[in-house]
Formats: sequence, C-alpha cells, structure tokens
Amino acid sequence: MPLSREAAHYLFGVMRLGQGAELSVFNGADGEWDARVAEAGKKGGTLEPLAQSVPQWLPPDLWLMFAPVKKARTDFIVEKAVEMGVRRLLPVATDFTNSERIRQDRLQAHAREAAEQCGAVFVPEVAELSKLSAVLADWPDARRLMFCDEAAAGSSSALAGVFAEAEGPGPWAVLIGPEGGFSEAERTRLYGLPQAHVATLGPRILRAETAAVAALTLWQTRFGDWA
Amino acid sequence: MPLSREAAHYLFGVMRLGQGAELSVFNGADGEWDARVAEAGKKGGTLEPLAQSVPQWLPPDLWLMFAPVKKARTDFIVEKAVEMGVRRLLPVATDFTNSERIRQDRLQAHAREAAEQCGAVFVPEVAELSKLSAVLADWPDARRLMFCDEAAAGSSSALAGVFAEAEGPGPWAVLIGPEGGFSEAERTRLYGLPQAHVATLGPRILRAETAAVAALTLWQTRFGDWA
Repeated sequence: MPLSREAAHYLFGVMRLGQGAELSVFNGADGEWDARVAEAGKKGGTLEPLAQSVPQWLPPDLWLMFAPVKKARTDFIVEKAVEMGVRRLLPVATDFTNSERIRQDRLQAHAREAAEQCGAVFVPEVAELSKLSAVLADWPDARRLMFCDEAAAGSSSALAGVFAEAEGPGPWAVLIGPEGGFSEAERTRLYGLPQAHVATLGPRILRAETAAVAALTLWQTRFGDWA
Repeated sequence: MPLSREAAHYLFGVMRLGQGAELSVFNGADGEWDARVAEAGKKGGTLEPLAQSVPQWLPPDLWLMFAPVKKARTDFIVEKAVEMGVRRLLPVATDFTNSERIRQDRLQAHAREAAEQCGAVFVPEVAELSKLSAVLADWPDARRLMFCDEAAAGSSSALAGVFAEAEGPGPWAVLIGPEGGFSEAERTRLYGLPQAHVATLGPRILRAETAAVAALTLWQTRFGDWA
C-alpha cells in the first residue's frame, strides 16, 4: 500500500514512526486494518496490511443540511454528524445565513479527523456551500426531508409530522435551519415540498449544533441504525 | 429592584447602561421582565420592573449526571443541558474519570450565561463534584435513572430497557458515562439498582457531550416536555 507524500510526512515526520511500526488505517471503503510500516521515506513509503480489525460499515443514506454558523460551532456540527452517522454533509446558505463562505477543504479534513477520533471507518463527503433555494428547486423525488422549524417550537407537536406520515427506510435528509430561523419564502417552499416532513425540537430554542444532534437522534432512532 | 455590586458593575461599567435604559431581566423564579434602570451607581443601582415578557417555566424534574471531561467539552455539556431543559446538573467522578476537579462556580456561571443566550428563564443548579459510588449508594427511591452504557453500543437495542419498562413522568436522572466507559464495579452497581434503566445510543461511540444531547433528546421526547 503506497503512501501519499502528505501521509508519509505525517507518519514519519510528525508521528516519527519507523520501519516495522504498527498502526491502524482505514480508507473509507475496506474497514479498518492493522498495518505495518514496510518502507519509510521523506516523500513516500509503503504500508503492509496485516489483518482487518473492523469491517467496513456505512451510515444510513442520510444527508445533513445545515446553515454555516460561527467557525467553532460549524466544526462542531461536522464532528457531531460524523459521530451520529450521516452519509453526506451539505452546507446551505439560507436567506438569514450570516456566514456566506465556508472552507470546504477544512471542513472535509475536520470530518476525517472526527472519524479517526471516534473510530469510524467512514468519512462523509462535505459538499461545497449551495443556496438552499437551489437545492430545494432540484430536490430528488425519492429523498425525504425532515426539516426542523424553529417557528414551530413552543408547540407541543414534537416530530408529529415525521412520525405520523413518514414510512420505512430509504434516502433521507435532515435540514437544520439557521440561528435566525427560515424566511417566510423558505418556509413556504419547505411546507410545499411533498418529500418534506416538519419536526419540532421541544419548547426551547436550540443552537444549531444542539438541534443537529437532537434531530439526528430522533431520525436515527426512528428510521436509522439506532432502531 | 436593588442590584448587587457585581450586577451594577456589569450593567453600568461593562455594558455602559445609564439611567432610563431598558433591558430584559430574569431571576429564575418570576419569568422574564422588561425593566428600566432607575438608579445607576458604581457600586449599586436599582431597576424598575415594567412588564413580564415571558412567564416563568420550569424544565421537567430531570437531573443530568456527567463525568467531567476536558474544560471546553464540560462547558459544552453544561450549555447543552440548559438548552435541552434539565433541572439540576450533577458532576460525578467515576472510576475512569481523568479530571478530578471542577470549578463549580465557573460551571454555574456558564449555566447562567447559557440561559441568557438561549432565552431561558431558569438556570439549573450545578452541584459540587461527587463520587458516583456515593451518589448511587444514597439514590432516592422515587427517582428513576437512565444510564447510557457504552459497552452496550453495537447492540441494536437502543433504549429498549427504558422504553419497555419505564412509565410516565416523575423525577428522573440521566447519567452519561465517562469517555473510558464505566468500570465493572460501577456497571454491576448500576444494573443492580432497581430505579435504573439502561439505554444505548446507537452503534457508534459518542463523545460525552454528544451522548448528553442524544440521551436528553430521547428522554425529553419519551418522558419530558417535548412529548
């Protein structure tokens, strides 16, 4: 297994591993493997796979859509999504999103680190920032969408929509609104989307990263691999 | 309404409010009020209450017990507990807890700030750090305990215990284990406690703060004020 220059730098330059050292590796497709350093160089090297220690698994076919917030809290959303088990992360700019940019490469690297930290063998793809209106205009027929409407907080119908109407597994997405809530235009569009199911997350206003974990918990328990 | 020296310093020294300025205040017992600065001094002052803007509410009679982790993540647990709605926070030292100390005053201040941030009118008490074994030895008869057992992760029985056995409202506590899991002695004690119900939080290992939000979501949806 040849190593990229970046991986060789990390393993031999930063971590100071030498020939014969053993480590755990995963590539997102073949589970986790015990491996041994066969060759260690400044610009490359090779690993010898020994035995698979964790079989490959995939999280459910679930996307998490979220409006970027402040840097540390956006990082947190990415980290939590990896732990909770999502297949893909879609940052979306909404009418009330303050932060108009993301560093996709940084968030992708953060997702990989989060997977390493929590022993996951799968790293969700982090998409580039898209406009929510554009994503909804082109929404796939077969993918259901659970959106969390802050304006419905205070009502006592937690997840009434999702639980009453939605059925079985299949492709899903969970959409967490921006901290300022959705605009009226967005709300109209969402409530009009046949694939959409509204969820409310209790009587208190939650921060975006809290709402992400709470919504993913409800989804995983009801439709995902926690069931 | 007379102000403490600390509050006067914050309002008049830091925030630079003057006589006649209007603000929102809460004391944890009377909801949120619009108020006006009647007198502003260096060491004190008074506020004149105008009208109640939010009635007082209490979260359900739920304690969150957690083993302190690194500072930023412990702060996060406190913040999330306030958003999710708990009545009391109990930091507990377990056999595998690394951090043997907490700054109770700092965590209590953090809980107050979190309440201000999320518009809550209630601030949970943060207790001093206790030994988990001592807390369990003296566990109240009427308070049920949902504990999250990492060792049961990977099994597919998410919350089976809690959902199947437990009934209705009443006093509860949710216990999040330390990142290294419970010791065998603790696990034996917990499984032997008649008030205890085991919950599992999906097939992936969650960090403590993620587990706290996920467990509180399940509890609130099943037994609390999200139902």
